[in-house]
Parts: sequence; structure tokens; C-alpha cells
Amino acid sequence: MLQRVSVGRWSLDAYRGIVPGEILEELHEQARALRGARVLHLNATAYGGGVSELLRSVVPLLNNVGLRCDWKVISASQEFFGATKALHNGLQGSPLQLSDADKAAYLQCSRENAGALEDGYDFVIVHDPQPAAMAQLHGKGSARWVWRCHIDTSEPNPDTWAFLRGYLAAFDAAVFTMKQFVPPDLPVGRVEEIAPAIDPLSPKNLPLSLDTCRQILDWIGIELPGRLVTQVSRFDAWKDPEGVITAYRLVRSEVPELQLALVGSMALDDPEGWDVYRQLSEHATGDPLIHLYTNLTGVSNMEVNAFQRLSEIIVQKSIREGFGLVVSESLWKGTPVVAGRAGGIPLQMPAGVGGLLVDSVEQCAEAMLKLLSDPQYSRELGSSGRARVRERFLLPRLLADELRLLADL
Amino acid sequence: MLQRVSVGRWSLDAYRGIVPGEILEELHEQARALRGARVLHLNATAYGGGVSELLRSVVPLLNNVGLRCDWKVISASQEFFGATKALHNGLQGSPLQLSDADKAAYLQCSRENAGALEDGYDFVIVHDPQPAAMAQLHGKGSARWVWRCHIDTSEPNPDTWAFLRGYLAAFDAAVFTMKQFVPPDLPVGRVEEIAPAIDPLSPKNLPLSLDTCRQILDWIGIELPGRLVTQVSRFDAWKDPEGVITAYRLVRSEVPELQLALVGSMALDDPEGWDVYRQLSEHATGDPLIHLYTNLTGVSNMEVNAFQRLSEIIVQKSIREGFGLVVSESLWKGTPVVAGRAGGIPLQMPAGVGGLLVDSVEQCAEAMLKLLSDPQYSRELGSSGRARVRERFLLPRLLADELRLLADL
Repeated sequence: MLQRVSVGRWSLDAYRGIVPGEILEELHEQARALRGARVLHLNATAYGGGVSELLRSVVPLLNNVGLRCDWKVISASQEFFGATKALHNGLQGSPLQLSDADKAAYLQCSRENAGALEDGYDFVIVHDPQPAAMAQLHGKGSARWVWRCHIDTSEPNPDTWAFLRGYLAAFDAAVFTMKQFVPPDLPVGRVEEIAPAIDPLSPKNLPLSLDTCRQILDWIGIELPGRLVTQVSRFDAWKDPEGVITAYRLVRSEVPELQLALVGSMALDDPEGWDVYRQLSEHATGDPLIHLYTNLTGVSNMEVNAFQRLSEIIVQKSIREGFGLVVSESLWKGTPVVAGRAGGIPLQMPAGVGGLLVDSVEQCAEAMLKLLSDPQYSRELGSSGRARVRERFLLPRLLADELRLLADL
Repeated sequence: MLQRVSVGRWSLDAYRGIVPGEILEELHEQARALRGARVLHLNATAYGGGVSELLRSVVPLLNNVGLRCDWKVISASQEFFGATKALHNGLQGSPLQLSDADKAAYLQCSRENAGALEDGYDFVIVHDPQPAAMAQLHGKGSARWVWRCHIDTSEPNPDTWAFLRGYLAAFDAAVFTMKQFVPPDLPVGRVEEIAPAIDPLSPKNLPLSLDTCRQILDWIGIELPGRLVTQVSRFDAWKDPEGVITAYRLVRSEVPELQLALVGSMALDDPEGWDVYRQLSEHATGDPLIHLYTNLTGVSNMEVNAFQRLSEIIVQKSIREGFGLVVSESLWKGTPVVAGRAGGIPLQMPAGVGGLLVDSVEQCAEAMLKLLSDPQYSRELGSSGRARVRERFLLPRLLADELRLLADL
């Protein structure tokens, strides 16, 4: 028996007045066609990472609109997670090969979990590569199977892809965050593009009074009232935190009191993240206006929420990016964004909406300076960004899209 | 050079209207006598644990009232922290001995840090055993040295105590949370008892609207509106979480819809905590009304704040306890407490104030039932508890006490 994750019960009614009414209607409409359908969401972990964060909202809402939805996580060994990390990296293009031991650990564990999976579902939605072999190893039974891939698999490592690819043929459909992420010879007949979304009622996004935000940031050492720009992202070279510091220092020659916060979440098993963090610490040492924060130093969802609300600008200077949902999080709070033109970011910020796209450190500095010196323009961008997120990147839209696919399988 | 921890700047004015005016006056009065005095707070870590949480508020406030206050942390090896963990446990009475390797690692690291410590301070306040040998190893110079012990050292392991004791003779004063915690033959002439305190403006205690609290708990799976009791504590046999579950199940025969949340913070290096957590998980499995949460599953300071505000009762069924400041945190939110008669808890909840003290599982169930069935009585207890915390257990009172001691050294 796979471990079932317990979630709260809550109601789509809570989203009325937040999400456009027609999106909620559309979701109810799609759900009617699937009333009573048994849906299983299957992923690798109950906590940590974007997928589990998403399922924590998705599963109770699907139950609320009339489906019977479970969320289960696979049980696995350290060796398995070592292997799936290599698999994950390979699918994103890493040149490192899966070892034979990795493949064996992946298959053994997948077989065990496939054996432990109960039947009786109408739909099984499998997230990311970790449980992806289970469709074939368990056998599809009477269920329809969907592979929900949240990562950029557009240029996978050929060997890694050859290994996983065979197990994907059992799926009835595959869903990608963006069309560009679909791998070249995917053996699945039905392929959908469904953009991700943020939950406006999760701790990272729920409404917080500015007073509360000020107290939160004050306590962790941001000087308020004061001018602040922030980048919220993993400490990873693709997010160019060094470039952010350089751009910020250019801006500071004009706005000397400006503070910069780099807020990142760290994984204990991510040595590269720690290296980047240490380098940044060295750059920031002795500069009282540059602040570094991580989840390991007490900065969690609500603090990120406060940063996104109180910053004059959120920077997301990605060089390479998946969808970059942190942009929608910021725009939802009406905060304008200066972001690298990469991955799904331009989709969230088309020309004239939400903020400014940049392709270099100099452009980044220029864009920041422009927004800092023109509060009216800055407010308008924030406000158009919020409107775009409201129309396109809130959770009920995502649910409606997914149910439309299920109903059509 | 020891690493300096940067903190925000903030002002005691923010506490006006929250803390009694006479306490703020008293603090300003004490600070006048020490205007410009250079104070160093020295401890083991910038993040994690009660001491660093406290210093994050104490240091900027001391600067704000006119002292020149630094906070520095020691640099140390894994071996050192292994040794100080054993030292810490031994001071609390563990029968396990310090090994010779532990003693050597402790002394070597203490010597290195003592060598790296700059002079020029008027007062050095050393927190807990980790940096305690530095007073003697560095030499006192022209500073007055205070050892601030936050743990219960009333019955230390004799060998461990014999080892540390020699290094304590260099201190001018020692401060304990409670008189009962002072070890038998402390070689320090001046001994003070200063009760700890909570910061009403920290994320764990700052005002949160009930709407925000509901959204926070709803999202992590608490069913609201609904009846809820919570214990917030490490997963440790001395906090008797098993007893809490037993008492809760007795109560549930009368209040069938009652939910229980056990909220605990876990350290990665605490195998006992994980064992207790696993046992509790087994007890709770299949009972949708019992919820277990930890910092590793996304429950951080603000979530604890929300639990303490939305629970009808906070339980703290300690069998053995230090001061038990979580009781003051709960009372400050006007929530009545059912607590074990242990450590500093009765000081926070004298008869008729704040809640009910209990000595057994049966008494715990009885007390919970009494409060759940008498909302008026429950409200009165919560309200008297809040008044007591306001008078005695808020941060500015602690600062005034500490400055009074410094001025008198």
C-alpha cells in the first residue's frame, strides 16, 4: 500500500472574488462531467518542492468540486533518490550518464511501488520522472494514465532519455508546462501544454497587511521604511545572482540608500547551491545594504510573501529558466518585475505588462533605475501584471485545464 | 576575528502601547547609566534555537537605547559541536561522560576563538557552555564578563561539571533563568536570576488577523471552522506527547469533533526526536483528527503563531521543563494553557491565572474538558494570562534586568 498524504478540506468558494468568476464557472462545468471520478495524484514526496506545494491545494479542491481524489507518494530507498536525481539532471540535459546501479535501483524501487499500488482509479496522474515507470510496471488496468512533467526536457541527455522513454509509452497523455519543453520523440500520442499557476490562498501568496509585512522584514534585519529590491530564487548560476549584485551596485551609485535582498531556498543535498551561497556571502560581506536569506535561516513562505509585497522591484535575472512561476507570485502582489528573457518569463510579462525584460547586467541596472525613478510607471506595470496573473496564472484555471484533458481521454 | 552577526536597526518605540510604560521607562533609566558602553554578546550560532532568536531582538534594542552592542558567533569544527552537545547534555544531568577527545576538541577550539576575539569591550556576555571557556582562555582584560546560562544545570553530571567548572571562575557574574538551575558549587561570586521573555514583535508573536491565521492553518490541513487543541514542543519524552494523545482521546469521547495538533521543531542531528516522531505518527495514522507538523514540513514561526491564536487550548504537558517559554507565547495570545507542573511553568501560571496545572494524563483530560465546556471561564483564564505576560515576560523587562546587573558590576 502506498502512503496516502492527508490534506485539508477546503472549498472553491474561498476563491470567489479573487479569481475571475468565469474561470470558476468553467471549472465547475468541467467538474460536472467528471463527478465521482476517482483520481490519483502520484509523486515522490509529501513535502518540499513545487509539486507537493501544488498538490496540497489541488487535491482538496478536486474533492470539493465533486471528484474523489487521492494523493499518494512512493516509498523509496536512498539509492533510488540518488538515481532519480541523476535521471532528473539527465532529462534536463546534464552530460552525466546514469550508471547501471542507478538504473537497477530505479527499476527495483519502481517495481516495488508498482506492486503496492491499489487499483480502482479512473485516472492516475504521475508527476515527474520518479514514479514514471510505474504505469508500465503496474499495468494500466482500467485507468487512464497521464504523465505530468514539470521540468524542461527539451534537450535530454540521449542515454538517459533512451532509458526512460520506453517506460513512457504506457501513458495515455503527457502534459508539459510549455510546448518547448516536450522532448523530441516522446512515445505518447496525446501531448498537452498546460501552464502552471500559483495558489492565491497559500502562505506564500495570501493577503498580508503591510504592517505585518513590515514587522516580518524588520525583525530579520531589513531597514524599514527603506528602499528595497529583492531576488527570490535558488542559489544557482542560471539565476545569475552575481549579475544581480553587479546590476544593483550600478544602480546604487544613483540610489545610495537602496537595499538588496537575495532570498533563496537551500537543499541539504545541493553542494553547488552552497558553493554559490558562499561566494555571494563573500561579495556581500561588509556591505550592510546587501542581505542574504535562506530557508535554513528562518526565511520561509510567509517571509517570501512579505518580501514580494514590500520590495519596490522584484528581480528575476534568470539566464535559463523553466517557467519561472516566482514572476507570477510577485506580479500577483502588484510588484513590478525586472526579469531575464528566458523560459516562461516572457509569457507572464509580455511587452508593457508587469515589468521589464532584460538581456544583460547593464539592461538590468537600467531597468531597475527606470522603475525606481518613476513610481507612477512602476505602479502601472505592477497593476497590469496583477491583472494578467488573475486572468491566466491562478490555480483554478490550471484545474479547469487539467479536468478538460481528463474528460477528453 | 570572530564573525559578527548583522542585525536590523529598530526602535524601542515600536513597543509602546504593547509593553507597560513603566517597564519602558525603567529600561531607558537603566540604559542612561550605561550610555556608550561597549557590550559584546557571544554565542555559538546565528540561527536556530532560542538564544539566537533572542539576540536578534536584544542586540538592535540595546543599540537603540544608547549602548554600543555587537553580536559575534564562534567558529568551530564538527568535533567541537559534537563535544559541546555532550557537554550540554552532561550539564543537564546525562550520565554519559565527556571523552578525552571531546575535551581536547572543546579546548582547542575555545583557544582558537579566544585568540580571535578582539578587545575593547566594557562587557562581554557569554551564552551557554559553548563559548564559556573563552573568558579564562582569552583573559578578562578590562571587560566585565557575564555567563548567561539558559539551561537547567541544577544536577550536572559530576565529571562534566568538574571539567567546565574551572573555566567559569573567570566570570564576574553568572545569570540563570531560575534559582533552582544554579549548580551546587558555582565558582562565581555574583549570581543572578533573570527570567526569560518573549518578543511581542517577533514572527512567532506579532499580531496576526484571525483571517490570516485561518488561511494559514486551512492550507496545511486543519479543518476550520472547527475545534482545536495544540501542543507546540520538541518531540521529546519529557514533553509527554504520548500522554497528550491519550488525554485528547479521553476528551474526544465528550467532544467528538475536537482536533489535536502536535507541532514540533526537529533537528537533523537528533535521532531521538525522529524516533518519537515516528512513534507518534503510528499512533496518529488513520485518525484524521490528529495532525503532526514539523519545521521540516513547512511549519515555521508564523504558523506556530497562528496555531497559538486559533487553538481553544494550548497544552504543554511537560513532565520535566526548563522555563517553558512556550507557555508565555500562548498566554500572550490570550489562549488558555493546560500544562504540566514542571520547571518555570507555575511561575507563568500561578493559581487561577492563565490556565490549569496538571500532574497526570487524567488531570490533563479533565482540565481540557473543563475549559472546552466553559468558554467564559476559558476566556477569563486566557485574559489573566495575557496580563501576567505583559507585566513580567516581555522582552523590555528582561533588558532592564540585564542592564541593572551590568551597571552594578
